[in-house]
Amino acid sequence: MSEFERIARLTARFRGPRPPALGIGDDAAVLHGEGPLVVTVDASVEGVHFHQSFASLDALAARAVEAAASDLAAMGARIDVDGAGLAFAWSLPQALSDADFDALVEGSARAAERMGAAVVGGNLTRGPNIALTTTALGRLDAAPLTRAGARPGDHIAVTGSPGRAAAGLGLLLSGRPVAPSLSALVDAWRAPRARLAEGHGLATGSPPASACIDLSDGLAADAAHLARASGVALVFDDDALTADPLVAAAAAALGRSPLDVVTAGGEDYELLATGPRACFGPGWRLVGRVTEGAGLWRDRAGQRIALTDRGFDHFAR
Amino acid sequence: MSEFERIARLTARFRGPRPPALGIGDDAAVLHGEGPLVVTVDASVEGVHFHQSFASLDALAARAVEAAASDLAAMGARIDVDGAGLAFAWSLPQALSDADFDALVEGSARAAERMGAAVVGGNLTRGPNIALTTTALGRLDAAPLTRAGARPGDHIAVTGSPGRAAAGLGLLLSGRPVAPSLSALVDAWRAPRARLAEGHGLATGSPPASACIDLSDGLAADAAHLARASGVALVFDDDALTADPLVAAAAAALGRSPLDVVTAGGEDYELLATGPRACFGPGWRLVGRVTEGAGLWRDRAGQRIALTDRGFDHFAR
Repeated sequence: MSEFERIARLTARFRGPRPPALGIGDDAAVLHGEGPLVVTVDASVEGVHFHQSFASLDALAARAVEAAASDLAAMGARIDVDGAGLAFAWSLPQALSDADFDALVEGSARAAERMGAAVVGGNLTRGPNIALTTTALGRLDAAPLTRAGARPGDHIAVTGSPGRAAAGLGLLLSGRPVAPSLSALVDAWRAPRARLAEGHGLATGSPPASACIDLSDGLAADAAHLARASGVALVFDDDALTADPLVAAAAAALGRSPLDVVTAGGEDYELLATGPRACFGPGWRLVGRVTEGAGLWRDRAGQRIALTDRGFDHFAR
Repeated sequence: MSEFERIARLTARFRGPRPPALGIGDDAAVLHGEGPLVVTVDASVEGVHFHQSFASLDALAARAVEAAASDLAAMGARIDVDGAGLAFAWSLPQALSDADFDALVEGSARAAERMGAAVVGGNLTRGPNIALTTTALGRLDAAPLTRAGARPGDHIAVTGSPGRAAAGLGLLLSGRPVAPSLSALVDAWRAPRARLAEGHGLATGSPPASACIDLSDGLAADAAHLARASGVALVFDDDALTADPLVAAAAAALGRSPLDVVTAGGEDYELLATGPRACFGPGWRLVGRVTEGAGLWRDRAGQRIALTDRGFDHFAR
């Protein structure tokens, strides 16, 4: 396919349920919408964020979209309304087959459909590897959930089971066959879901949450951002962090501690939020409390131990 | 510098005159603004769109920003208002020096300042080469200038002198020293300027222009998009297209025809627009007329000759 044939393919496949005022095919898209605009950009680069052996290309493309939308979820924004949507900037090797291109389109389109998002534009270029850059635009119905509002006395809660994606990635990287009993961990890495409903629920709830962040770089690194921005300490319940038996089993197989897998591993795209007990409904699990002070701690039977602030640094050597 | 030191550097340098409601440093940016939103994404990739030998890194970074903003200009949108701005997704080699990183920041910041745009967010990742992906968000004060409104009887006009950037790039690619008399052509490639004021003027004028496109892929390819979208023919005045003596001199030095340089060469980031004579003020040059029919033509002393539809295809082999 030529570039223009590919753009035509994209335009046809991305004709979603929520067309913008002016969509793909002009110099830019035009969106009508109300409320404050939320903007985020996220990249998923072959050889850095993924290898093609880790998942099918459609899954990897969907994953890139979910990762970008996860930042909107962490702000409490919606993507399924007018004036919101997705734009895809893809860098693709010249040798990429048309079937592989179609797989990228299909995975992205399915992710957009899952979240009810319009695809409003994008850009195609050649490049040395597959690099999928996603701009996600959301709209707010309430004040945004920033990282800065956590208050002493708040509870800490998470969606899902952070650490599963890191455990799954560890199993993939080990090169050994994955036991069927642990395949849910690999799925957690392969098919994360942006927690848009959960984030929006926290922002619009009564009471709303006080702060929120998505877990992309690792629970410890991301929680440290929230603690620093809020000027508080976060104290995690040791047992609650390491309660997932699948993560524990994978950690044992990988020769790592469950706590290390849970705190140092990223790419869960679950949410971590703080707030009064009443703001956390079904889908949230309480894992600790906010206190005065600074930094991250874990509470093991009443004893406070520092939780190392670790995460993924793209430029560390 | 670590990733977080680099983000701190970016945050400090990009603290512009127009801070968004919530800027760099949270999961996403929050923008308050009015009017329809215009969205575009553009990539500038080392080895595809540029080589480091072609210009300094700060110039290449500024160029990437101008190229993205040019799409907003072509819609008649503003970037220097609340609710508009830029987000940068950069893929950088691990070996990139801190000085080179600072040059990219400086060039991008200067381009943003030149156009009065807020930098509202971004993303850093490792990658095999420098790839700068820019999301540009604009706001409309009037109906957008699409590619679809050209009517028979309209004039065709351009800003600047299309072909200069292609001539300058040809000189750079030739590997020979550039004569001082032709250095303005190299500057046209190195330092394009998004025609934001001109585009906004066309959209809000009385009468407004009927259609507009920016010249990124080459005058012939881009004009063909406009002709097709509008369902008209564009007839260019042969002399007007090839009137620039510098382009003619460079074409001679490169062994190409001036018309080929002007029509097949891209990356001018000038605007091509159609409309009644009265909508084109200073800064615009008339180069032809819109007629019934289809395709691109040139008028040479009353004779109509087809103008080949050529341009840059990222996936042509």
